[in-house]
Amino acid sequence: MIRPGPVTRYRVRQVSGNIAKDRRDDLATEEPLEIRVLAGGVSRTVAITMRTPGADFELAAGFLHGEGLVRPGEIQAIGYCTDDDVPPEARYNTVSVRLPHLPEVPHLERHFMTSSACGVCGSASLDALKDRCVPLVTSAVKVHPEILYGLPATLHDAQGVFARTGGLHAAGLFTPDGVLIQSREDVGRHNAVDKLVGWALLHDRLPLTGQLLLVSGRASYEIGQKALAAGLELLCAVSAPSSLAVDLAREFGMTLVGFLRNERFNVYAGPERIL
Amino acid sequence: MIRPGPVTRYRVRQVSGNIAKDRRDDLATEEPLEIRVLAGGVSRTVAITMRTPGADFELAAGFLHGEGLVRPGEIQAIGYCTDDDVPPEARYNTVSVRLPHLPEVPHLERHFMTSSACGVCGSASLDALKDRCVPLVTSAVKVHPEILYGLPATLHDAQGVFARTGGLHAAGLFTPDGVLIQSREDVGRHNAVDKLVGWALLHDRLPLTGQLLLVSGRASYEIGQKALAAGLELLCAVSAPSSLAVDLAREFGMTLVGFLRNERFNVYAGPERIL
Repeated sequence: MIRPGPVTRYRVRQVSGNIAKDRRDDLATEEPLEIRVLAGGVSRTVAITMRTPGADFELAAGFLHGEGLVRPGEIQAIGYCTDDDVPPEARYNTVSVRLPHLPEVPHLERHFMTSSACGVCGSASLDALKDRCVPLVTSAVKVHPEILYGLPATLHDAQGVFARTGGLHAAGLFTPDGVLIQSREDVGRHNAVDKLVGWALLHDRLPLTGQLLLVSGRASYEIGQKALAAGLELLCAVSAPSSLAVDLAREFGMTLVGFLRNERFNVYAGPERIL
Repeated sequence: MIRPGPVTRYRVRQVSGNIAKDRRDDLATEEPLEIRVLAGGVSRTVAITMRTPGADFELAAGFLHGEGLVRPGEIQAIGYCTDDDVPPEARYNTVSVRLPHLPEVPHLERHFMTSSACGVCGSASLDALKDRCVPLVTSAVKVHPEILYGLPATLHDAQGVFARTGGLHAAGLFTPDGVLIQSREDVGRHNAVDKLVGWALLHDRLPLTGQLLLVSGRASYEIGQKALAAGLELLCAVSAPSSLAVDLAREFGMTLVGFLRNERFNVYAGPERIL
């Protein structure tokens, strides 16, 4: 099988005003990725997610970490799955992660959403997070607004070849001085963050204390949850946060910045980290 | 419990240049929704999804339809769940849908992603769709580019009170003449489409032959799948489509328009429906 690339070329008809012309266009590739865990000789599918090929191992590692299913140091091996039940054409869409033990079943059965004795509600979701997320280690990090203003352009410039498809979400990890440490992209907003956190996990860089995450879109509860699990104190979004993302940030002492664009932003939680 | 509204008010610090001021800001509410199916006295959780409260019954109905778990006419009753195991504070976050029979289990266990004998890959996903989606009924519908140019503004104007949060995805159903039939919004892109299709399902309007769907963001495989299940022949997106969305549209004979903004667009599939 040809390994799928991050970009796929299509012939399209471009219409502008009354003029139509055919040309080639690059689109972000979207293909399913099956994430398996392997422990004690037992292999188990944990999730199937649509993603942009590339950084697949990081995506698998980051996904498992964000869901509280692996901790730093637990991954023994990671690779494309060569089990007999995986045919050649699905080879590069199946990643197997070897762990000391299989993750607990309840998580898997509840579609990775937290439910609790008090039923599903936002505050119950936050309570469930408390059980599995270590409290944020608070550093003395403080960021100047001028630094924040510059982050979106830095992240955009880093999107490189993918930028031309116009179809990718980006996530960037920065120092408090605004230096880009690493960035990842994906058709899925959550996947971009998973890839970035997975990169950090596989490079023994967790927790990401004193560092800053910028996402190119909105900040939802799930993005906040992944950032929290990675130990990030500052989460910035180019677009709006949701109510539950704000609740999460306030509950866990994270700084949440939204609408970071055009030399302005809103601080929804943790203003003490903004100079 | 107070029933959650679509918008939640927060106190935020707005920073612009060197000026910071505190003010109130409305954000899109994000709360979990548990979707249960009930048949023959057995109640079962099918999914828990983060969503913006409002149109919850439509969301549940549309979600089940998009996953191929209900067909038009099968829903016998739908309401907030009053089972003993649902505490008052989760009452408005749990919807129960009464069906003639429980949906098949395999779907539930695979996280609603299609997998097949050939493993996970894009073409396998499309093959699996063929098994459960009726072929598109092709009408004689054709749309003029000038009509398409006007759709994003019409949808944006319809966003009404939600527009002020800046945090919501929108989906709009249009006639080929560009008249907005119905629109729905949500923090989740897929949820907005589910709500819209659920509205159509609950009003006996499926399939949506000859009508047109516009989504405010990108067109992914999942959006295409939901549109296909609803019988839509034309899918338009303000932003980019993914590769697999284009493959899906070409495979099933759907017209797919992307980058519909500023009086221009690209046609990725089915150009015969554009005049």
